Amino acid sequence: MSGNSFGERFIVTTFGESHGDGIGGIIDGCPAGLTLDMDLIASELAKRRGTDEPYTTGRKEPDEIEWLSGILDGKTLGTPIAFLIRNRDVRSEDYEGLKDWMRAGHADYTYQAKYGIRDWRGGGRASGRETAARVVTGAIARQILSNEGITITSQALMPENMKEGESYGGEVVCHIEGVKAGVGEPVFHKLNASLAYAMMSIPSAISYETGLGKEGCALPGSQWVDQWQERGEGRELTVTNHCGGIQGGISNGMPIEFRVGFHAPATQRETQCRNEKGEVRTITIEGRHDRCHIQRAAAVVEAMAALTLINFAR
Amino acid sequence: MSGNSFGERFIVTTFGESHGDGIGGIIDGCPAGLTLDMDLIASELAKRRGTDEPYTTGRKEPDEIEWLSGILDGKTLGTPIAFLIRNRDVRSEDYEGLKDWMRAGHADYTYQAKYGIRDWRGGGRASGRETAARVVTGAIARQILSNEGITITSQALMPENMKEGESYGGEVVCHIEGVKAGVGEPVFHKLNASLAYAMMSIPSAISYETGLGKEGCALPGSQWVDQWQERGEGRELTVTNHCGGIQGGISNGMPIEFRVGFHAPATQRETQCRNEKGEVRTITIEGRHDRCHIQRAAAVVEAMAALTLINFAR
Amino acid sequence: MSGNSFGERFIVTTFGESHGDGIGGIIDGCPAGLTLDMDLIASELAKRRGTDEPYTTGRKEPDEIEWLSGILDGKTLGTPIAFLIRNRDVRSEDYEGLKDWMRAGHADYTYQAKYGIRDWRGGGRASGRETAARVVTGAIARQILSNEGITITSQALMPENMKEGESYGGEVVCHIEGVKAGVGEPVFHKLNASLAYAMMSIPSAISYETGLGKEGCALPGSQWVDQWQERGEGRELTVTNHCGGIQGGISNGMPIEFRVGFHAPATQRETQCRNEKGEVRTITIEGRHDRCHIQRAAAVVEAMAALTLINFAR
Amino acid sequence: MSGNSFGERFIVTTFGESHGDGIGGIIDGCPAGLTLDMDLIASELAKRRGTDEPYTTGRKEPDEIEWLSGILDGKTLGTPIAFLIRNRDVRSEDYEGLKDWMRAGHADYTYQAKYGIRDWRGGGRASGRETAARVVTGAIARQILSNEGITITSQALMPENMKEGESYGGEVVCHIEGVKAGVGEPVFHKLNASLAYAMMSIPSAISYETGLGKEGCALPGSQWVDQWQERGEGRELTVTNHCGGIQGGISNGMPIEFRVGFHAPATQRETQCRNEKGEVRTITIEGRHDRCHIQRAAAVVEAMAALTLINFAR
Repeated sequence: MSGNSFGERFIVTTFGESHGDGIGGIIDGCPAGLTLDMDLIASELAKRRGTDEPYTTGRKEPDEIEWLSGILDGKTLGTPIAFLIRNRDVRSEDYEGLKDWMRAGHADYTYQAKYGIRDWRGGGRASGRETAARVVTGAIARQILSNEGITITSQALMPENMKEGESYGGEVVCHIEGVKAGVGEPVFHKLNASLAYAMMSIPSAISYETGLGKEGCALPGSQWVDQWQERGEGRELTVTNHCGGIQGGISNGMPIEFRVGFHAPATQRETQCRNEKGEVRTITIEGRHDRCHIQRAAAVVEAMAALTLINFAR
Repeated sequence: MSGNSFGERFIVTTFGESHGDGIGGIIDGCPAGLTLDMDLIASELAKRRGTDEPYTTGRKEPDEIEWLSGILDGKTLGTPIAFLIRNRDVRSEDYEGLKDWMRAGHADYTYQAKYGIRDWRGGGRASGRETAARVVTGAIARQILSNEGITITSQALMPENMKEGESYGGEVVCHIEGVKAGVGEPVFHKLNASLAYAMMSIPSAISYETGLGKEGCALPGSQWVDQWQERGEGRELTVTNHCGGIQGGISNGMPIEFRVGFHAPATQRETQCRNEKGEVRTITIEGRHDRCHIQRAAAVVEAMAALTLINFAR
Repeated sequence: MSGNSFGERFIVTTFGESHGDGIGGIIDGCPAGLTLDMDLIASELAKRRGTDEPYTTGRKEPDEIEWLSGILDGKTLGTPIAFLIRNRDVRSEDYEGLKDWMRAGHADYTYQAKYGIRDWRGGGRASGRETAARVVTGAIARQILSNEGITITSQALMPENMKEGESYGGEVVCHIEGVKAGVGEPVFHKLNASLAYAMMSIPSAISYETGLGKEGCALPGSQWVDQWQERGEGRELTVTNHCGGIQGGISNGMPIEFRVGFHAPATQRETQCRNEKGEVRTITIEGRHDRCHIQRAAAVVEAMAALTLINFAR
Repeated sequence: MSGNSFGERFIVTTFGESHGDGIGGIIDGCPAGLTLDMDLIASELAKRRGTDEPYTTGRKEPDEIEWLSGILDGKTLGTPIAFLIRNRDVRSEDYEGLKDWMRAGHADYTYQAKYGIRDWRGGGRASGRETAARVVTGAIARQILSNEGITITSQALMPENMKEGESYGGEVVCHIEGVKAGVGEPVFHKLNASLAYAMMSIPSAISYETGLGKEGCALPGSQWVDQWQERGEGRELTVTNHCGGIQGGISNGMPIEFRVGFHAPATQRETQCRNEKGEVRTITIEGRHDRCHIQRAAAVVEAMAALTLINFAR
C-alpha cells in the first residue's frame, strides 16, 4: 500500500515537503456535481493553522489553495480534484545548521535510515505541514457527510499552567453523530480499526481509544455491557455507550466516540542532535516551534474521521 | 478494501463461522521453499485455545489443520496456502433460543443491521473463533520473521480477585526485537498506524498505545524526547524509548513496544436481549463463555503483530 | 497486487494445484440474503468440463463442491463464501517422469525460475484445472447480474478438419446485453482495459479485441465512427457498434462485445523437455490432454466477464 | 480501484482536463537518491507530442514540467514526486458550440451518463492530453529499468496513401529486452494480463496481442510450441518466440513482444452530434484534430510498458 494515499473510494493522495515549493493532493472518487463549500475549507484550514494565541504556531501562512483540475464552473466533474498550496513563509536558512545533524525526538534519523537521503529543511515530508492537505480533503468529505446528516465535532483539552519555553501534548475527544447502524466491515476492516489507523497516522499521535477506552479494560463484564433500551433506536438504542457506537467493528447507530492522545512537540530551542558518525551535540534551533499543538490536532482528527467515514459504503 | 483480508504482500484472507462447518484461510504471498514449522503453529494455536485453568474458555477443540494447497513434500510452493480447521465441538442447539433475540454487548444487532440476516449460532463470523485463522497465519509469518532475527513476545496481566460468575478484560503489552531502522511508510501507512489497525481489529480490543502511550500525553516535551546515546545504534540508540521504537511512522531500531486493551467478554449467563420489534428480555445462555480471555488475546496480538510486520518491505 | 485474487468489491481468491488435494476459493463481498442457484453453478461447471465429444478433455471429474462457510439455511450471510472441490481423478504417477524435466510450451520453466521450486504434477497451479474455481465464482456473479437484467453469452468457433493426434486453438466471441450507460472508470481502470486484464489472465489466451477489434485499425475515421441514431437509447443508440459498447472506457448502453484468442493446448504425446542443466530430450506423456479447449474456454470467458462486471459500481 | 491510479509499488496518479489549468500527476514509490534524467523525460514528451510532419497533431504545447515535490538538489527523496504541466495553448472557444452537443465516436455521451456532468472543452479528462502525464512518469520508470538492463522499443506502422481530410489508425509493435525469467504472477495478475490492462487503457486502443498473437490461434499445437534450444538461456532459450516471452503469465527470459491496435481518431471536421433530447445534427468543428496518432501512440505504449514492468517485483 502506498504510504501517501488514504482510502479506497474517496482516495486522497498527498505530496509536498515542509519547505519545498508547496504541498497538495489529489482526490480521486469525489462525487460529480458538487459545489465545493470554499468557506468551509477555509475555516477548517484556519482551525488547523491556529490563531494568534501565544501557545500555538509561530508560522503564519495564507494557505491559499490553487485548484488545478476536476472542477468546472464551480462544480466537481467526477474527475480527480488536484490542488496546490504554495509554501510562502519558508525560511530554509533557519535549518542550514541541521544538514548533517539529526534531531532527537524527530523523524530525521528514521527517514535517513529508510531512504538514505532526507530533506533537512524543517522536517520535510514528516513535518506537520502535510496535515494541511488532510484538512482540505477532509473538509470536502465533511461537506458530503453533512449532506447525509453526519456531523463531526471534537474537544481538545489544553494543559493548565504551561511553562515558558516548554511544549505540551494532550488529548482530543471526537464525537460523530448521524452514522446509521450497519457501517463497517467484519474481521479486519472494522470501523474502529480503520479509525485507529487514521488517527495513529497523524503526526505525534500515540494512543487511540474507542468509546470508554482504556478505562473500560478494568470493568467487569456485567458493568461493561451496554444494556438495551426498550424499543430504542439510533442514539437511544442503549442505556450507556461504552462501546462508542461500534460493535463487532460495525456501527450500531449510537454516537461514535473515540479519543486520541498526542505527545508534546519534540522541537525545543535547545535540541540534542546526532550526526551520521553517532556524535551528539546540542544545537540551538531558531525556527518556529509549536508550544502546544492540541487545538491544531483537533482539526486534523476531525478531517481524518471524515476521510475514514466517507470511505465506507453507506 | 475487503473486510476479510489483511496485508498487501503476505495476504491473508479468512473465512468461517463459529458454528458452521469450519474456519480457515488462504495465504497468498508466502515465500516458496519454506518448510513450515508445524510444531510452532500447533503451540501458537494451543496458546490461543487456552489451558485447563478455570478462567479460560470451556470450548475444547482439537484445532486440527487440514492443509489444502500450496505445499508439496512439506515445502511451500509460492502458490496460495489454503487451510481448513473443522468445527468439531459444535453445539448449535445451545443457541436455538437466540434465533430471534440479539444479545446486549455483542455484534448480533450490527450484523443484522448491515446484512439483514445473521448467523445466530454463537456469534457466527463475529465470534472469537475466527482468530484461530489469524494465529495459524501469524505463526507462519513469525517463522519467517524469526529467520530474519525478529522476535515477538507479550505479557498479559490477569486481573486479581476475580469473582465467580463474572468476566474480566485486561491489557496486553507487546515487545518486538530485531526490527532494523527504516521499516514503515510515511504519512498514512505509518508502522504504528498499521499496528493500531491490526490490533483494533481483534475482537474486544478497545485501546491501542504506542511506546509510553497515554501516559506520554501528559509529559512536557523536555521529558518526552528520547535523547540520543553517544554512538548508540539498534537497541542502544536512545536513552529512553518513550516513542516505542517508531518515529515519523518508521522504525528507529529500538525495540518496538505497544499495548492493547481489551474489554471483558460480554457473554454472561444471564444476558439481556432484544428482538427486531425492540422488545427486551433476559435470556439464560447455556453456551460456553470465557471468563477472562486476556491470555488468549495475547496469542492473537502476537499473531497480528507478525502479520503486520511481514507486510512491510524490508 | 495478489496474483491469486480478482476484484475489489466482489473479491475472489482462489487456491489449489492440479494434482493436489483440491482446488477452491473464497468470495468476499457477495451480497447477503441471496439463495445460490446451485443448478446454474453445476451447469456452468459442466460447460467448463466439456462433454463426451472426442475433442475435449479426457479428465472426468465429478467437480463436487463442498461449501465451507458464508451460507446458512441456503442463504448467503454476507460473510466470506469458501468452497472446496476435491481432486478425485488424480493420477500423479502419470507425471513422475517429469520431476526433473520441464515441458516445452508450458509454464514449468517459468514457475521454476520464479519460485525455485515447482509442482511437477500435471502443471500444478498453472494447470487449467484452476479455472473451475473461476467458473464457480463467475456463476454466482452471473446470477446477481442476471437479476439486474444483464446476460452474457458467447460463441466458440471449433476448427474444421482436426487431425488425429494434433491440438487446436481458436477464438471466443462474447456478447453482454443489459449493461446501462455509465459503467467503467476513466483513464486507467477502463471497462475494456479491465476486460482485457480478465481475459488475458485465462490460460492460453493470446489476444483480446474490443468491438470490431483488429479489423477496426484499418478503417479510416469516417468509417470507424459509430453514428448516432436519432433519439436512440440503450441498444439502439448508434447505427453500428464498432466500439463494442464502450467509449472512453465507459459503457454507452449498446451491447458489449469483445473477442479472445487462444493458442492450441501445448501438451502433446511426444513433448520436448529440458532439465535444469539445459539438456533437451523428448518424453512421451501418458497423461490426459485436451485436443481443443475452445468450448471449455468459452465457459471461462463468460465467468471472467461476469467477475469483471460485478466489480464495477452500478 | 481508482480509475486514475496505476500500479501498486510505483504508483502513478494523474489529474487534469484537456482545456483546464493543466495536467499532472504524483508518483508514490519512486526510489530515493535518483537523479532524474530530465533530457530523457523531455525527449519522450517530444515523441508523444509529435513533430512537424503534416499528419500529426496541430496542437503545439511547450509541455514545460513544474516539479512540485519529492526532489531536493536534483535527487529524489523517496517521497511523492508531484508535477504539473500547465495547459498553455488552450482555445476553449473552439468548443463553445459543443456545450449541449455530444460528438459521435467520442466519450462525451458516456461521461455525461456516468457523471451527469461533463467538461465539454475538447474532451476534458477523456482527451489524449492526459497521456502526457503517462509519458512523464513512464520516462522515470524507463530510466530505472534501463539501469537494470531493460530496454523498451516499438515500431509504429503509418498507413500508406492517406487521404486529405481523413484520419487513420494503426498498430504499434513493442519489444522489451532484458527482463529476466520469473517476472509475473500466477493465475490473475499475469504479466501479459497486466500488459493488456495497461495497453487497453490507452485512448483509442482496441486490440492487444501477446507474441504471435491472433495469428497464433490458427496454428496447431505442434507448430505453436516454442521448442527448447539445447542449453539455451535468456534470449536464446527457445527456437521460436511465439509466446512473446511469457509462459503461464511469467517471463521466461526471451524478449517480451506484444502488439496494440488503435482505431482512427474520431474527430473530423464534420462531426455528427446529439443532444440530451436525442436530436442529431452535424457540427463543423474548428478545433485541432490529429490525422494519424500512431506515432504518438507508440510513445504512450512504451511509457505504459515501463509503468507495468516497474510494478512487478524483480
